[in-house]
Amino acid sequence: MLPSNNHPTSLVSCASAGKILVFPLDGSHWVNMKVIIEELHAKGHEVSVVRAADSWYISEKSPLYTSVTLTGSNGFKENFETYLSPQLEIQLQDRHSSFWTRIWNLSQMRKMTVDQFSQFHKGMSEMIVNMFEDEKVMWYLREAQYDVVLTDPGIGGGAMLARHLNVPLVFNVRWTIQGEAHFLIAPSPLSYIPFTATELTDKMTFPQRIKNVVSYVMGMYTLSAITQPHYKPLVEKYIGPDVDYSTFFLDSDIWLMRNDFVFEFPRPTMPNVIYIGGFQCKPPKPLPAHLEAFIQSSGDHGVIIMSLGTLIGTLPQDIVEEIAAAFAQLPQKVLWRYVGERPANLGNNTLMVDWLPQNDLLAHPKTRVFVTHGGTNGVQEAIFQGVPVVGLPLFFDQPDNLSRLRAKGGAVIVDIAMLDRHVFADALMAALYNPSYRENMQTLSRLHRDQPMKPLDKAVFWIEYVMRHKGARHLQTHANKMSWFVYHSLDVIAALLSGVLLVTFICVSTIRLMWKFVFRKKVKHE
Amino acid sequence: MLPSNNHPTSLVSCASAGKILVFPLDGSHWVNMKVIIEELHAKGHEVSVVRAADSWYISEKSPLYTSVTLTGSNGFKENFETYLSPQLEIQLQDRHSSFWTRIWNLSQMRKMTVDQFSQFHKGMSEMIVNMFEDEKVMWYLREAQYDVVLTDPGIGGGAMLARHLNVPLVFNVRWTIQGEAHFLIAPSPLSYIPFTATELTDKMTFPQRIKNVVSYVMGMYTLSAITQPHYKPLVEKYIGPDVDYSTFFLDSDIWLMRNDFVFEFPRPTMPNVIYIGGFQCKPPKPLPAHLEAFIQSSGDHGVIIMSLGTLIGTLPQDIVEEIAAAFAQLPQKVLWRYVGERPANLGNNTLMVDWLPQNDLLAHPKTRVFVTHGGTNGVQEAIFQGVPVVGLPLFFDQPDNLSRLRAKGGAVIVDIAMLDRHVFADALMAALYNPSYRENMQTLSRLHRDQPMKPLDKAVFWIEYVMRHKGARHLQTHANKMSWFVYHSLDVIAALLSGVLLVTFICVSTIRLMWKFVFRKKVKHE
Repeated sequence: MLPSNNHPTSLVSCASAGKILVFPLDGSHWVNMKVIIEELHAKGHEVSVVRAADSWYISEKSPLYTSVTLTGSNGFKENFETYLSPQLEIQLQDRHSSFWTRIWNLSQMRKMTVDQFSQFHKGMSEMIVNMFEDEKVMWYLREAQYDVVLTDPGIGGGAMLARHLNVPLVFNVRWTIQGEAHFLIAPSPLSYIPFTATELTDKMTFPQRIKNVVSYVMGMYTLSAITQPHYKPLVEKYIGPDVDYSTFFLDSDIWLMRNDFVFEFPRPTMPNVIYIGGFQCKPPKPLPAHLEAFIQSSGDHGVIIMSLGTLIGTLPQDIVEEIAAAFAQLPQKVLWRYVGERPANLGNNTLMVDWLPQNDLLAHPKTRVFVTHGGTNGVQEAIFQGVPVVGLPLFFDQPDNLSRLRAKGGAVIVDIAMLDRHVFADALMAALYNPSYRENMQTLSRLHRDQPMKPLDKAVFWIEYVMRHKGARHLQTHANKMSWFVYHSLDVIAALLSGVLLVTFICVSTIRLMWKFVFRKKVKHE
Repeated sequence: MLPSNNHPTSLVSCASAGKILVFPLDGSHWVNMKVIIEELHAKGHEVSVVRAADSWYISEKSPLYTSVTLTGSNGFKENFETYLSPQLEIQLQDRHSSFWTRIWNLSQMRKMTVDQFSQFHKGMSEMIVNMFEDEKVMWYLREAQYDVVLTDPGIGGGAMLARHLNVPLVFNVRWTIQGEAHFLIAPSPLSYIPFTATELTDKMTFPQRIKNVVSYVMGMYTLSAITQPHYKPLVEKYIGPDVDYSTFFLDSDIWLMRNDFVFEFPRPTMPNVIYIGGFQCKPPKPLPAHLEAFIQSSGDHGVIIMSLGTLIGTLPQDIVEEIAAAFAQLPQKVLWRYVGERPANLGNNTLMVDWLPQNDLLAHPKTRVFVTHGGTNGVQEAIFQGVPVVGLPLFFDQPDNLSRLRAKGGAVIVDIAMLDRHVFADALMAALYNPSYRENMQTLSRLHRDQPMKPLDKAVFWIEYVMRHKGARHLQTHANKMSWFVYHSLDVIAALLSGVLLVTFICVSTIRLMWKFVFRKKVKHE
């Protein structure tokens, strides 16, 4: 399918304007990418976006970009529809289960996650094949002479495209195909750097450190086992033999990392990693009149905001009723985003809505607590506005996001499988009435806001930097080009040890020879 | 000795003004520190500077700061006067020596360097004792209630003082007492990160990597052996037993690193390291009329600027004559800063001066080449102005600085021991007429200048940040608090290996038992 040009300003060129090719990841990652595209568009750059014909979030027509639509599906929406509800169900089964059933559930959950990732990468690899096979699209992309490829390394298509087109590469990244992006580029001692999905912190006990190392080894093996079958033949065909898929993820000139060290634990980093955490956060807009009136009616008690994101529409009715019961006990008002059936026991203090202006609400001075599933955006907005969090993590990076906030004293986490009205009310009461949660979130907010440059401006600066200088290879370490054997100096250590052994052997042999010589002489003399 | 208050603006306070205690290193490091103090003073902060009574570079009276003068000497000036000339002499002996003499010279040179460092740390530790023993000074420092201590970790006095006063700490750092500062805080794989004083790059051959590992092991041992005797008793007395001197260098909230990744090879770094390389570089001022006239007289050929810094006043006369002869051959004009005897063969094209405005000259469009000893300031100014370099390294970090510039294609290095008119003229001709040197330096200049924030503004921002937030401990990794054994997960690896061995042992034992059982049965049956 030929690209549809609906970019109204594509003919308006300014001195520093450039051509940017975006290969985004669908779903919530697109929401983030779009924030950066809006800013690039406002700066006069020409943006093209590669999308699947049946893309879930990425619309074909936009005033912000020209879309380059590929034939076929990327399987993104089906993936979520197929796996998310059953996964939540398994998690919730733990509510009424014995220890052994829970162990069984865990193994089922793991199997399902592996299946889901495998299906995800199947869809993504098919999308990449559709791209490389579409001669018209490839001709268009080659002819367009882009200045930079901007992509989300949750999939490798953008990096492969950048190498194919020989164009500089910028990552807008939270996770790579191999898990936490830092593990790919920066030294990551497992003694204080928690691996993905472990919910550990930078301060670990001995058993936690064992868990971390085992999780890392199993995680890396599983990820490689899931992805290699899908991508290996594809790389061989379109890029060349003897190219490892993982090397595409070392190509990037700049990594725009969607976190920072107010949120993330401090750890080694690299010169080409730029932290843009909270780049999507904006000053609040005034609230609609009915919401403002509802909030003002809360008096000094203030309001609680609850939203579990857009992926999970509904929860089992018994859980919804437990949550409603806990809210009903409180003197605060509650604004709850929920699209399922209204629970019968909803309190008078609780307003259920289909949608809410989350950032504007979090910025409201009467907001006391934010109940969230722990998606990166929500957590970053809570930090930006300094609001204490009660976390109900469900999938993906949500448990890890919330465990970071808990470690920094800003969040209480409730296991949804263990949730009842008492557990939930206790968590809410802690976040409401223990002043440390608010103080800690306010400190994080102050630190986050105190930066030499706003995160979104930083993102745009470095994309434009790569365009100005045709890359930023001078910021990539030489480590990227070394085998693990050389990187860890194992050959040098072996050589030095051999040297020491050789010298020892020669010394010992010489002494023995001399000894024999003296001894033989003695024997002769006697 | 009580502090002399000659700080004219110390009573002018503005909303964000704070109190800063500076514990600088004497000599050329002070020149750098003073640039930052000037900026802090201009922003309305109150600065106190700790200095020895006989300080070499740090004057007692200044409109910029209140000085806190300690009794006694820091031995800084004598150290340079005692060691520098003999060291240069040994280096120059190589000119007319056999291979074996040169090996001997090398060992002499090493011995002298160790002596020099030992004397240096003796002087510095005496200065620290003078401080802690001076009750009036300590009372003054405690009462002043500083917001931050700013120090150069080339010595540990500032860090010890910050811990004693319980005040946040900022390092303005090029080297620490343990050598290259990065080796102390960031993972530094020796496979691509050259150790101090090796002149290696990030791309090493196998023998070079062996050299790097051996240099690291020897260097760390030597540095520890030199410093421990001087500082161990001192730390025990003034801070407490069981405190290792090296831990003071992990206290720093922020490291203002006097380089960047235009100059330095890309390598792992840490969240609390801020790169301020080139912070001292300024836009040029107009030249004095006689210099401008001299430069203009060079026509299209342009000028060569030569300066070997302020430490070495004079060179042996035969070398000076060789340099003069090489210059005399060229069509360029030459501006040469030299305070020794004029060589008889000085060319008509060469103007010898006692002092020259280096930065202003390097910025001149007619400047073609900069001949320098490779001090950090000169190299940074050459990068800032994009001027090709001919390097004559003499001491300290000069060979390392120049080898970085050579690796990036901007410098030719001449070994002063091998220098004659032909060798030197060849180097000059290369830098003058091979366009790649200028192109590479211009590229470095463009990259260096293209930053979101000027390096000096960055330095001030982060010092003020530490004052605003009373530290920046959230940017320090937990690695600082771990033993090397735990840091490298050696206990976890041991536990996991033991586990595997135990399981293997149980399996093998069980099989053997069963085997025996079956075998015995068989025997019985037969």
